[in-house]
Amino acid sequence: MLNSKKKYIVSGNSGIKAQIQFADQKQEFNKRPTKIGRRSLSRSISQSSTDSYSSAASYTDSSDDETSPRDKQQKNSKGSSDFCVKNIKQAEFGRREIEIAEQEMPALMALRKRAQGEKPLAGAKIVGCTHITAQTAILDDGGDLTHWIYKKYPNMFKKIKGIVEESVTGVHRLYQLSKAGKLCVPAMNVNDSVTKQKFDNLYCCRESILDGLKRTTDMMFGGKQVVVCGYGEVGKGCCAALKAMGSIVYVTEIDPICALQACMDGFRLVKLNEVIRQVDIVITCTGNKNVVTREHLDRMKNSCIVCNMGHSNTEIDVASLRTPELTWERVRSQVDHVIWPDGKRIILLAEGRLLNLSCSTVPTFVLSITATTQALALIELYNAPEGRYKQDVYLLPKKMDEYVASLHLPTFDAHLTELTDEQAKYLGLNKNGPFKPNYYRY
Amino acid sequence: MLNSKKKYIVSGNSGIKAQIQFADQKQEFNKRPTKIGRRSLSRSISQSSTDSYSSAASYTDSSDDETSPRDKQQKNSKGSSDFCVKNIKQAEFGRREIEIAEQEMPALMALRKRAQGEKPLAGAKIVGCTHITAQTAILDDGGDLTHWIYKKYPNMFKKIKGIVEESVTGVHRLYQLSKAGKLCVPAMNVNDSVTKQKFDNLYCCRESILDGLKRTTDMMFGGKQVVVCGYGEVGKGCCAALKAMGSIVYVTEIDPICALQACMDGFRLVKLNEVIRQVDIVITCTGNKNVVTREHLDRMKNSCIVCNMGHSNTEIDVASLRTPELTWERVRSQVDHVIWPDGKRIILLAEGRLLNLSCSTVPTFVLSITATTQALALIELYNAPEGRYKQDVYLLPKKMDEYVASLHLPTFDAHLTELTDEQAKYLGLNKNGPFKPNYYRY
Amino acid sequence: MLNSKKKYIVSGNSGIKAQIQFADQKQEFNKRPTKIGRRSLSRSISQSSTDSYSSAASYTDSSDDETSPRDKQQKNSKGSSDFCVKNIKQAEFGRREIEIAEQEMPALMALRKRAQGEKPLAGAKIVGCTHITAQTAILDDGGDLTHWIYKKYPNMFKKIKGIVEESVTGVHRLYQLSKAGKLCVPAMNVNDSVTKQKFDNLYCCRESILDGLKRTTDMMFGGKQVVVCGYGEVGKGCCAALKAMGSIVYVTEIDPICALQACMDGFRLVKLNEVIRQVDIVITCTGNKNVVTREHLDRMKNSCIVCNMGHSNTEIDVASLRTPELTWERVRSQVDHVIWPDGKRIILLAEGRLLNLSCSTVPTFVLSITATTQALALIELYNAPEGRYKQDVYLLPKKMDEYVASLHLPTFDAHLTELTDEQAKYLGLNKNGPFKPNYYRY
Amino acid sequence: MLNSKKKYIVSGNSGIKAQIQFADQKQEFNKRPTKIGRRSLSRSISQSSTDSYSSAASYTDSSDDETSPRDKQQKNSKGSSDFCVKNIKQAEFGRREIEIAEQEMPALMALRKRAQGEKPLAGAKIVGCTHITAQTAILDDGGDLTHWIYKKYPNMFKKIKGIVEESVTGVHRLYQLSKAGKLCVPAMNVNDSVTKQKFDNLYCCRESILDGLKRTTDMMFGGKQVVVCGYGEVGKGCCAALKAMGSIVYVTEIDPICALQACMDGFRLVKLNEVIRQVDIVITCTGNKNVVTREHLDRMKNSCIVCNMGHSNTEIDVASLRTPELTWERVRSQVDHVIWPDGKRIILLAEGRLLNLSCSTVPTFVLSITATTQALALIELYNAPEGRYKQDVYLLPKKMDEYVASLHLPTFDAHLTELTDEQAKYLGLNKNGPFKPNYYRY
Repeated sequence: MLNSKKKYIVSGNSGIKAQIQFADQKQEFNKRPTKIGRRSLSRSISQSSTDSYSSAASYTDSSDDETSPRDKQQKNSKGSSDFCVKNIKQAEFGRREIEIAEQEMPALMALRKRAQGEKPLAGAKIVGCTHITAQTAILDDGGDLTHWIYKKYPNMFKKIKGIVEESVTGVHRLYQLSKAGKLCVPAMNVNDSVTKQKFDNLYCCRESILDGLKRTTDMMFGGKQVVVCGYGEVGKGCCAALKAMGSIVYVTEIDPICALQACMDGFRLVKLNEVIRQVDIVITCTGNKNVVTREHLDRMKNSCIVCNMGHSNTEIDVASLRTPELTWERVRSQVDHVIWPDGKRIILLAEGRLLNLSCSTVPTFVLSITATTQALALIELYNAPEGRYKQDVYLLPKKMDEYVASLHLPTFDAHLTELTDEQAKYLGLNKNGPFKPNYYRY
Repeated sequence: MLNSKKKYIVSGNSGIKAQIQFADQKQEFNKRPTKIGRRSLSRSISQSSTDSYSSAASYTDSSDDETSPRDKQQKNSKGSSDFCVKNIKQAEFGRREIEIAEQEMPALMALRKRAQGEKPLAGAKIVGCTHITAQTAILDDGGDLTHWIYKKYPNMFKKIKGIVEESVTGVHRLYQLSKAGKLCVPAMNVNDSVTKQKFDNLYCCRESILDGLKRTTDMMFGGKQVVVCGYGEVGKGCCAALKAMGSIVYVTEIDPICALQACMDGFRLVKLNEVIRQVDIVITCTGNKNVVTREHLDRMKNSCIVCNMGHSNTEIDVASLRTPELTWERVRSQVDHVIWPDGKRIILLAEGRLLNLSCSTVPTFVLSITATTQALALIELYNAPEGRYKQDVYLLPKKMDEYVASLHLPTFDAHLTELTDEQAKYLGLNKNGPFKPNYYRY
Repeated sequence: MLNSKKKYIVSGNSGIKAQIQFADQKQEFNKRPTKIGRRSLSRSISQSSTDSYSSAASYTDSSDDETSPRDKQQKNSKGSSDFCVKNIKQAEFGRREIEIAEQEMPALMALRKRAQGEKPLAGAKIVGCTHITAQTAILDDGGDLTHWIYKKYPNMFKKIKGIVEESVTGVHRLYQLSKAGKLCVPAMNVNDSVTKQKFDNLYCCRESILDGLKRTTDMMFGGKQVVVCGYGEVGKGCCAALKAMGSIVYVTEIDPICALQACMDGFRLVKLNEVIRQVDIVITCTGNKNVVTREHLDRMKNSCIVCNMGHSNTEIDVASLRTPELTWERVRSQVDHVIWPDGKRIILLAEGRLLNLSCSTVPTFVLSITATTQALALIELYNAPEGRYKQDVYLLPKKMDEYVASLHLPTFDAHLTELTDEQAKYLGLNKNGPFKPNYYRY
Repeated sequence: MLNSKKKYIVSGNSGIKAQIQFADQKQEFNKRPTKIGRRSLSRSISQSSTDSYSSAASYTDSSDDETSPRDKQQKNSKGSSDFCVKNIKQAEFGRREIEIAEQEMPALMALRKRAQGEKPLAGAKIVGCTHITAQTAILDDGGDLTHWIYKKYPNMFKKIKGIVEESVTGVHRLYQLSKAGKLCVPAMNVNDSVTKQKFDNLYCCRESILDGLKRTTDMMFGGKQVVVCGYGEVGKGCCAALKAMGSIVYVTEIDPICALQACMDGFRLVKLNEVIRQVDIVITCTGNKNVVTREHLDRMKNSCIVCNMGHSNTEIDVASLRTPELTWERVRSQVDHVIWPDGKRIILLAEGRLLNLSCSTVPTFVLSITATTQALALIELYNAPEGRYKQDVYLLPKKMDEYVASLHLPTFDAHLTELTDEQAKYLGLNKNGPFKPNYYRY
């Protein structure tokens, strides 16, 4: 699952507010406009979001006002008009939603409280680029902002202290830039932090695969035959959940290590062709393209459900279904029946886009983890002494990963054990961590 | 679990045979004695094993001959006497056991077949240090051989091409040597290869915790309250198995990330003190020392079972139970009742040594994985071009890890999917792997 | 779970169509009106549904027409006006929904096909009483129709061949009537058929508890502490699902046998008071009343979710929350925050009514099982030779239960093994079943 | 699993002691010899055990004394010689084993304590027929004693107050006698009590299948393909355990209801022929005969493991393997390799007898449940007022089943909830139970 497509750049002279801000510092952001004014930058950023926004609208029934939010002058309750949202009238509703969410984001709240005193980002300008709602998942903006600055405003890099990137694609691009010697600032890869990977992918998908399938199809899982393509964290989560619900699960893999894991976890490892005729559900979790081809689709049985939990909208070759002999029938939001001439129907969810973003919700708790991780990475990059980070891509320091985790333990009334002095010495560890070598796999 | 305490050194002039040899090369080993003769070296190695051997004997009923194997002159069927085993008369039995085992070690057999043609270790002298049987687990020889060469024969390092180390302790020592700038040859840390970690620890312990407890106590798992100390791979395996059998499992942890994983997997995270009075079983899997103290033991309820799946014999403070007011009663092999003055009995397994080594068996399949991994590491170190490996500690190259896994897939009739050219290009991967970045966690 | 509140009466002279009809016989129903005309009977039945209908309306946004359906004259496409529905214009939509549903009800379709030839209900008049949609679950009509005939039209019993009852309450009343010697016709208790019990309760609730909680709260299950009150089939399903999703589950029970099962399945058996302060979710599945009292509600922690999967709306004492000091806040459909003076919020789902009926959907597959069971029971009662059934309550004959199950196996591509003659003789069984004694528990 | 082949007859004038006795009453047994003296009866009973004893001996290494225990005069420490055991010298060891066992049989101890005061069996003579150790499972004595009395001493029935039968076969014979009108005394079928069924079969086999396979083969379960024949309680237990350990499990069934359960629990339902070539393990749990035939055995792959968890030794056609072209090789106790001319080996466990009895142990806790159940049934039959039980077969009264369960709850520190008066009235239940109708399935 690539569900958090957020990207932050820490810079000296521009700033869009981070999704969840630290109260005191927020006023700083608002008071001091920068050379590259917020408006112009946010406009450009907004432009890259345009398509997704209007597409998303087609799935919501409330889009009666067709005017672009960028062409409307709006004011909030304090008289400020320096923003661009679809409908400022919903601000109060949004505020209340945020307040409810805050109750389930204890770590972020704890961090905010601490930050109120320390003001670790005082003076920082933060440019952010993120999907606002799950509805916009048809778009992948991973690294778009960096790319755009690199192409259009290369000089701006001089003023940038660092990049925090959370999307798979964005991280991939950063590593490519780094390899090519073109990365001009330090970048933090928070996508591959442990907590992010395990929560966004394994633990979150374990729940959202069930949720997404239920909300769209009301199907019963028990006894169904399912093939899951890909046994990474997302695939592992999907398989575990469906197995627990009484489905019979097959797995396809290209990586022999993950394949062996699938075997040991009790799943038959097959090629897609071997089971495509018999399965009731096909789920892609590979990050790859054209995993499910038209040939596969032609061979599926009537009423087979096809959906994507992996990457963007590339995994299922949906374009191959846009041919004259096939009839598309939208049976409900996010659910299409694609009908073959002989009457066979394939049930395609979310048009092959991410099921978990399109058809289920991301728990607040998971957002808390990713947001806290991002905030800590911002603070680290902004406050790191000269020279700690070079023009390269860095994983989140393990100690911060551990800190994010520790902030979330009270939610579960979980009590951590502390090493005694004697034990710490025996293990050669600091009592406050980090507790594991960098290559540890959890 | 630290169950494979094997250690190989590739050198130019000495050689004890690897446990599973490549036939043709084997003769080379036997024909050319080295300056540091095998006998003297094996003697020394044997010395370090002496204690364990005689201790182990106390648990087997067949030890009627008290003469040390090193003081007996023995001959095998071919007339060779250049070895040191306890009883050469059992060679035929051992050969048959090996033949049966070979049937379940398809990867090692495949590798041997390939090696017969290529002879990748021709000319190599290999010194090995390993536990021969599970019975000797009371001893931890991790890195002892390296340490001993370092202390006694430092000049020998000039003739050594590299070290392959599979024990946790041995790896730990190598990293310390490296950090101190004292490591004179390249070393391969195969302990932390993915397949080794997951199979030796997670998958193997998931089965052996049940096996070890059943064989020693015949207890029923359903409804029992268990506390597992440590939620690394071993702890994860133990917890998953016991949960599946209907036990109620509590977890203790010092690392907040592993702690959060325990929460998400459905286990109450507690401090040992909170549950010590109520649990039926205490299992240590930390790698730490004095995790279970006399104070804990004093507070356990009658008939509580205490055992160790983690490291050596340090985790439970067994020494603290050797006091006059407590009575020890050996009720069967590997099972002691420790009796308090008020009649309370604690059931201590394997005197606090590793339960899985002392009281259950390691599946041949797991041995196949670790032996194949070691053999590949030997081949890599011996054949690597000058300069590929410096005087440092290396993880097994991912490609080899993947190769070991792929050799074991046929056992499960598992069919791997191959990337198309188009897909490989899209992902930026070689079709033959490696398929993941080094930091990938599986 | 008491989710199928359907009730059929086979009689000689009246008939409301069964939800799923057998095509040919349907015309019979329409052609011959009976003395006790359909209209008058349906009116009365409708009356008992009035309250639920209008209540349900408050949860749907489409209720613009406030006129009662009984006061509107409507015509269908064939000109018939002998029915009473809310809006005949939606007939086409309903027809299409039925067609989609039929694809997932293979057993019912198989039965219908067979019935088309045999016409086993030719001449029968069937009066039915059922909830039309899940929305009406605030109401419990179990046995209402029988009760109403008994009270108002006792003479009508002379014309009734039998009763088929599927609701828990209705069955309970029938047993009471029988005990009191007041049951005048044979009655079939299909509520306690194996397939109905296991599918409606165990297998269906295993899925719908997750679905209902997700749709209403978007909560994450992993790591949450949950107490499930009652370990019958419904409780077993809820516990298994939540355990699999990584929740920590406690169980309360009054029956020592079910309690022991909970223990063996790995759940701590507690009294509600012991855990009420610490749990994140409380789920009732008892069939009892006032299981969760105001005292419990007062002691729950902030944000605790409270819901009912068991019986009607009796299990949680919701009335006790209608006091001046507590504030109710409807945060979304079916979700109320009840706010204590100190700011503590309890999240109450479906106002204490059945979560699975109010907030999730019943899979078509489960409806297929219950509908097929009912149809077979109708056929059996209607065609049974004189004297086979007396004025008593009967369980569905095991052979029919087995037949219903066998009709659903093809859905799973499941291949049943047949006994050889020798085996059947050895077991003393007929090769076509029944295969088990009546007391067998599955 | 048919592992408890115990049978008690309550009679006025004979008595072998129940395995676990009530202390005071025990002396009664010893003091008053009956017409059909204990010796003669026990002789006959012993005779039927002879074969099993000597067969068992072939698997134990300690059988040095070939004299039959019936031909040896022995004395216990109190001078009594009125018994027949193999070796009275082991009495002390046995006493200590019993004392240890008593600690895990809290219910039986509680019952004994209560009985000490009430003496509910004072004056009763009890004849028992039971397997003494797990080793004797090659024999099925179910109902043998009743059958033998019926054939040899029909007049004795006049003096018998009732029969308590716990073996499947014995119960089957009782029902046949009853059907034929030939049962002269009331009989209690305790085999089908809930606690017995669930514990002896479901919960116990869930553990013993793993234990039995490990102890005999040291195999790894992860990734193995297994077919389980029969999805009754035993099959359910085996499937659940192996699924949890990462095996891929197929199920065969003859009963469509159980078949549908297997589907919903996530197992492919197949005919044995469909998977016989690919599976690594075949487990029979049917109670049927010739489920695995020579034809199946011929088609299995090399190293396939075959074992029986179901009934006696009938399920696998072992006799068909006793042909000249096949070689049998005993590789360890209870494990035979059967070798085909082409070298293929089948690994046959316990020669097709019950794996759980032959190769694993029955937890004391389970024995506690069955022994308590039997004791209560004896008390009930002996004390029931004239006329309560006729010449028929009865299930254990539900209240006793619940009582047995309640006695075992303290072991798990399980806290039962009590109904309030208001709740009991609402449910129409007595606060002390029984809590369920007789047809309830748990």
